Amino acid sequence: MRCFFRVEYEGSDYVGWQYQPNGPSIQAELERAFSTVVRENCKVVGAGRTDAGVHARAQGAHVDLPSGIDLCKCQLSVNALLPAAVAVYGMRKVADSFHARFSARRRRYRYYMMERKTPLWRRRAWMVFHTVNWERVRDNAQACVGTHDFSAFCRSSTDTENMVCTVEQAALERRGEVWVFSIQADRFVYTMVRSVVGTLVDIGRGRLTESFASILAARDRARVGETAPARGLVLDYVSYDEVA
Amino acid sequence: MRCFFRVEYEGSDYVGWQYQPNGPSIQAELERAFSTVVRENCKVVGAGRTDAGVHARAQGAHVDLPSGIDLCKCQLSVNALLPAAVAVYGMRKVADSFHARFSARRRRYRYYMMERKTPLWRRRAWMVFHTVNWERVRDNAQACVGTHDFSAFCRSSTDTENMVCTVEQAALERRGEVWVFSIQADRFVYTMVRSVVGTLVDIGRGRLTESFASILAARDRARVGETAPARGLVLDYVSYDEVA
Repeated sequence: MRCFFRVEYEGSDYVGWQYQPNGPSIQAELERAFSTVVRENCKVVGAGRTDAGVHARAQGAHVDLPSGIDLCKCQLSVNALLPAAVAVYGMRKVADSFHARFSARRRRYRYYMMERKTPLWRRRAWMVFHTVNWERVRDNAQACVGTHDFSAFCRSSTDTENMVCTVEQAALERRGEVWVFSIQADRFVYTMVRSVVGTLVDIGRGRLTESFASILAARDRARVGETAPARGLVLDYVSYDEVA
Repeated sequence: MRCFFRVEYEGSDYVGWQYQPNGPSIQAELERAFSTVVRENCKVVGAGRTDAGVHARAQGAHVDLPSGIDLCKCQLSVNALLPAAVAVYGMRKVADSFHARFSARRRRYRYYMMERKTPLWRRRAWMVFHTVNWERVRDNAQACVGTHDFSAFCRSSTDTENMVCTVEQAALERRGEVWVFSIQADRFVYTMVRSVVGTLVDIGRGRLTESFASILAARDRARVGETAPARGLVLDYVSYDEVA
């Protein structure tokens, strides 16, 4: 019985979504909890493999469980076994053809920035100590929208990977003391959001003088700015046709 | 030269504002940082002595520094020395008669509650797993407003302490998935906010059938509900006549 569920996690103390030999992963925590509850080995598949230190509010995932299991009780038991930094919710039965990664239609990431040292946000935001022209960041962010080759913003070196992403939305808004950059696309390449945010901030603080549109069109890694730190990034939502 | 400043801290890993033999305190962190920067022993006085695990957004404090010191540079140096969980801001010179505790006119606390396991809020909110009638909580909260003897809501046993507080405002609002209880008063007694919140939630979930007004009037500790956990509490603001 294939089951879909959402995962929220604070990634600060994890090596990322995926197994790594060098520390605990979100995937391993989930598989351990599910396997304990249903008493057989479970494999968990996620929509996106977030990096070390990156968080998620509504990551999408699936797991195959013994048929007939009570999903409401299972979710409660799994949450009780999981550490405080990881929670599952919205568990439901889906078709066997459903796949958390391949069925995902779009992903939304949010990146949080603050302009001073803020202890209450220290695990969730990038402290940008420079003077930034946020209007310029907002204007340049618009150039993300559309179908583009994001290879210059990808840190992985595989030439074979598809680097074309269709960005539906890119926006910067202020919520109280926090600057929130939201970006929604059909897919993302490795470190894309952090690389886009770092480049936009470099433009906003005048460290880069070229426009974002021109950097994007050049497809040259050397013209891209800094990679923003992992702690400010949240995989905010993954959308599917099959589930709400 | 007496200096006022504000302090933001995430109290999760601290024994509280004040020195304790059993672990690190916010006060000790601040005094260590100030003493290192100005190269003489500094004593820091805060407006409120928050408990272990309680946070602050705008605690008020003062410190006496050698006259002529550059406050802007001093604040930068102190923040660089302080751990990520503590930050100072808004540092300015005040009159020698100013006292962070005795000059404080009012304090505002906020208490954060969530209804499910939420990793991204795990250090900042109380997970209330029970079914709560929040309308009833909101209605009962109004009974806090006014001048009352809060001795039943105080966990300390000193009979001599003044237990009368004037509450100017008490409100419950929903922000996204979070329930925020705000309370503003001239002063608070020990564990008052956590005891008020615990009692209101006990009323909201039907565990207590008496109204908050009647519990408050009775001044009997036995009729008060649970004490809500420290992690949901933030000393949100301290107001002074002398500083903005």
